[in-house]
Amino acid sequence: MSTMNLTLLTDFYELTMMQGYFKNHTTEVVIFDAFYRRNPCDGGYAIAAGLDQVIDYIENLSFSPDDISYLRSLNTFDEDFLDYLSTFKFTGDIYAIPEGTVVFPREPLLKVVAPIMEAQLVETALLTIINHQSLIATKAARVVYAAKGDGIMEFGLRRAQGPDAGVYGARAAMIGGCVGTSNVLAGQLFDVPVKGTHAHSWIMSFLDEYTAFKKYADLYPDACCLLVDTYDTIKSGVPNAIRVFTEMREAGIPLKNYGIRLDSGDLAYMSKKARKMLDDAGFEDAFISASSDLDEYLIESLKSQGAKITSWGVGTNLITSKDCPAFGGVYKLAAIQDEETGEFIPKIKLSENTEKITNPGNKTIFRIYDKETGKIRADLIALVGEVFDDKKDMIIFDPLETWKKTKIHGGTYVLKELLIPVFQKGKCVYSSPSVMDIQAFCRREMDTIWDETKRFVNPHDVYVDLSDKLYKIKADLLEKMSMDALK
Amino acid sequence: MSTMNLTLLTDFYELTMMQGYFKNHTTEVVIFDAFYRRNPCDGGYAIAAGLDQVIDYIENLSFSPDDISYLRSLNTFDEDFLDYLSTFKFTGDIYAIPEGTVVFPREPLLKVVAPIMEAQLVETALLTIINHQSLIATKAARVVYAAKGDGIMEFGLRRAQGPDAGVYGARAAMIGGCVGTSNVLAGQLFDVPVKGTHAHSWIMSFLDEYTAFKKYADLYPDACCLLVDTYDTIKSGVPNAIRVFTEMREAGIPLKNYGIRLDSGDLAYMSKKARKMLDDAGFEDAFISASSDLDEYLIESLKSQGAKITSWGVGTNLITSKDCPAFGGVYKLAAIQDEETGEFIPKIKLSENTEKITNPGNKTIFRIYDKETGKIRADLIALVGEVFDDKKDMIIFDPLETWKKTKIHGGTYVLKELLIPVFQKGKCVYSSPSVMDIQAFCRREMDTIWDETKRFVNPHDVYVDLSDKLYKIKADLLEKMSMDALK
Repeated sequence: MSTMNLTLLTDFYELTMMQGYFKNHTTEVVIFDAFYRRNPCDGGYAIAAGLDQVIDYIENLSFSPDDISYLRSLNTFDEDFLDYLSTFKFTGDIYAIPEGTVVFPREPLLKVVAPIMEAQLVETALLTIINHQSLIATKAARVVYAAKGDGIMEFGLRRAQGPDAGVYGARAAMIGGCVGTSNVLAGQLFDVPVKGTHAHSWIMSFLDEYTAFKKYADLYPDACCLLVDTYDTIKSGVPNAIRVFTEMREAGIPLKNYGIRLDSGDLAYMSKKARKMLDDAGFEDAFISASSDLDEYLIESLKSQGAKITSWGVGTNLITSKDCPAFGGVYKLAAIQDEETGEFIPKIKLSENTEKITNPGNKTIFRIYDKETGKIRADLIALVGEVFDDKKDMIIFDPLETWKKTKIHGGTYVLKELLIPVFQKGKCVYSSPSVMDIQAFCRREMDTIWDETKRFVNPHDVYVDLSDKLYKIKADLLEKMSMDALK
Repeated sequence: MSTMNLTLLTDFYELTMMQGYFKNHTTEVVIFDAFYRRNPCDGGYAIAAGLDQVIDYIENLSFSPDDISYLRSLNTFDEDFLDYLSTFKFTGDIYAIPEGTVVFPREPLLKVVAPIMEAQLVETALLTIINHQSLIATKAARVVYAAKGDGIMEFGLRRAQGPDAGVYGARAAMIGGCVGTSNVLAGQLFDVPVKGTHAHSWIMSFLDEYTAFKKYADLYPDACCLLVDTYDTIKSGVPNAIRVFTEMREAGIPLKNYGIRLDSGDLAYMSKKARKMLDDAGFEDAFISASSDLDEYLIESLKSQGAKITSWGVGTNLITSKDCPAFGGVYKLAAIQDEETGEFIPKIKLSENTEKITNPGNKTIFRIYDKETGKIRADLIALVGEVFDDKKDMIIFDPLETWKKTKIHGGTYVLKELLIPVFQKGKCVYSSPSVMDIQAFCRREMDTIWDETKRFVNPHDVYVDLSDKLYKIKADLLEKMSMDALK
């Protein structure tokens, strides 16, 4: 759990490069962008998450005497550099897209403006945090979307990739829209609802299933969810649950929040069968929840089959984002400040893969909303300082296939800048909302994209375009480099 | 990072069940087995890992006053139960297979013998830790196997699922055989080699690639690995690297540990081309390392194509075990002690899926080695107390397809018990070796299985059989339950 000092949570090369800049007296201010290239799970969007932990990380950056001793022991770093590290503080600016925001490929989720040594050091941890939480928040949003209003519970701690993955994964899952988590520590740390009832071992620890159910109902009459598949769901589990519910009804115990959980077998068939058995016994309001290797695809399929499930516990596939367990965010140098003029000189990284060529310069992002529907028309990456008038027509074009142009008529759209200041001169100027508030914000964000973008197969891509000015700078840099290469 | 108190790192239902046992005065000692059902990545084996963190977790189990207040705030737990928790300690026994051991499906990696409330509480965190580290250690062993003696470096921190996943993932990767990690914090915590040189940003921060290389070589002549793909690997990167190496040679700087890193493009082609260019310039001993979405399959393919790479940096696909990001370990009740006789009464969980039926009773595991080759013939799950004479013939059989029998002749095999005591009456009686010692042990373990089991496609399964006595207990329990169901 990352309350410990994470200053050494970095790739070794960040430190060797830092020493290199130190030795060369390189103190220029640079701009790095953290962005990603493809939406997880071949989807149409992602959800930004992790900023609050980035803030913690940056605020606590400091090399302890033990850290310095350890680095000294590696026989790579000189004393003057170690001295510098011993009083290291982050003094730069950070801009970020707030957590819970719907985001798209190639737009900077985070922009670091800082002396090169500082900007370099923080690369790895920033990516670790943002990549992980954005991945799980995105997966959660997908699962929640598939459930069409049913509650999704995050149940994955035991399959998470370590304690942090469980705890911060649960946080991200809540941001993405889960109604609760089984993870008690996440509940404590982030003030989010924790949920859960009992396991098969509870049933097996009693002489028979009926006794186990009965004891559980005695203890928790207000949250009585009985797991019915330890022996035989239809022949034993559901009849025993009905027997206990009947006894509760006869004893005058109010039946409010009660039902069963299916954890194996054919969930479509079992849920319909169980629904009928419960209804026939007069328990129309008993819920049926399910867990068992669920994900967004299976939930969508079960709902289309008419499964009688209204509450879903999702474990492994959510907490690991199993079909796509890495977000792929990168951190690329975008500009170097001229120390005399203060101007940012754009930098570009080439690649044989066009998609991997970076966007140079000191950038910001404008989101273009349709005035009438409130839906996103496109995002526009522009240079800091560019001004757009929403009363004028705007022509946007695909940055790769530039002949694909769209005109957005003046007066029909609204602009919002996405990157907000989080650190200024090393001081945090942003206060994170609570996780439940971020969840509410994320729910509204999900309303700004169409179902066509949210669907799982061949989703519609939202355009992320470059301003004319930025496009020209990029094209000029590319031209110059390709000419240089011919020399 | 899990040095903080992880006592609440548990599923909520562990606590509701605990309170249930508490209210019912259930104090029986029970046995839970932690085991898994399928090898990761459709492989033939797994590597056990994570025990040292399990020990930390168990030793630090304790509900703080804040934890108790938090639990009280959930309006689910009574004061008498919270009182009990406030002085909670783990008092049971734990047996485990040592880290670095080659393991197979269905054998308990960990066995907990404890009062039911204690055994229940620890379920989630034990699984989180063991599942994660065993997964990554297994993946690392596969990648190392593919590299046929070349060094594998763990480079995945930025794509890990949070800080712990990076740090403990690096630990597990070292156990599985990596020669180093880029993760500095893992280096500090576990005393393992850290490695790394520079990123594209280093190159881009200078006016040209040559200057960037030159400056780097000046600083780190003894570990001079130049990243050659920022602009154009063959036209620019390799020629500039050769220019710098040539200048070093001319200046009389000893060229020992030097070479290039390829990070994009067609690695088979690029490495052959770069090898020829380096050789032609007289740098036959310059290494070529590579990184770029590598995994065991790609490394095996590149080696079969004759790629001239001898050092591999593996990131995302190793640290997340991308094609199989969850280990799937479970924790199942196996027996309940009769409080009068002290005897363990075997318990079983049925399932419609035969593979998911648990093995009942208080068990241990014997590994059967071939005396001549030292390779594993089979594993045998037996009841504690069963004695086997390695001078006698042993007939083993597949527990699912019982007609598949093999006779192992007396005198040709050696037996070793795999589970060793780790906690006794709540006290740790085991001292973990260093990570590098576990790595050395794991290397020897990998020699106990044949290539047929290590290969990636259709690996040969090592038999994990049940002793006659255990098999009979299981069959009797199944028979009894199926008869009960007919009543």
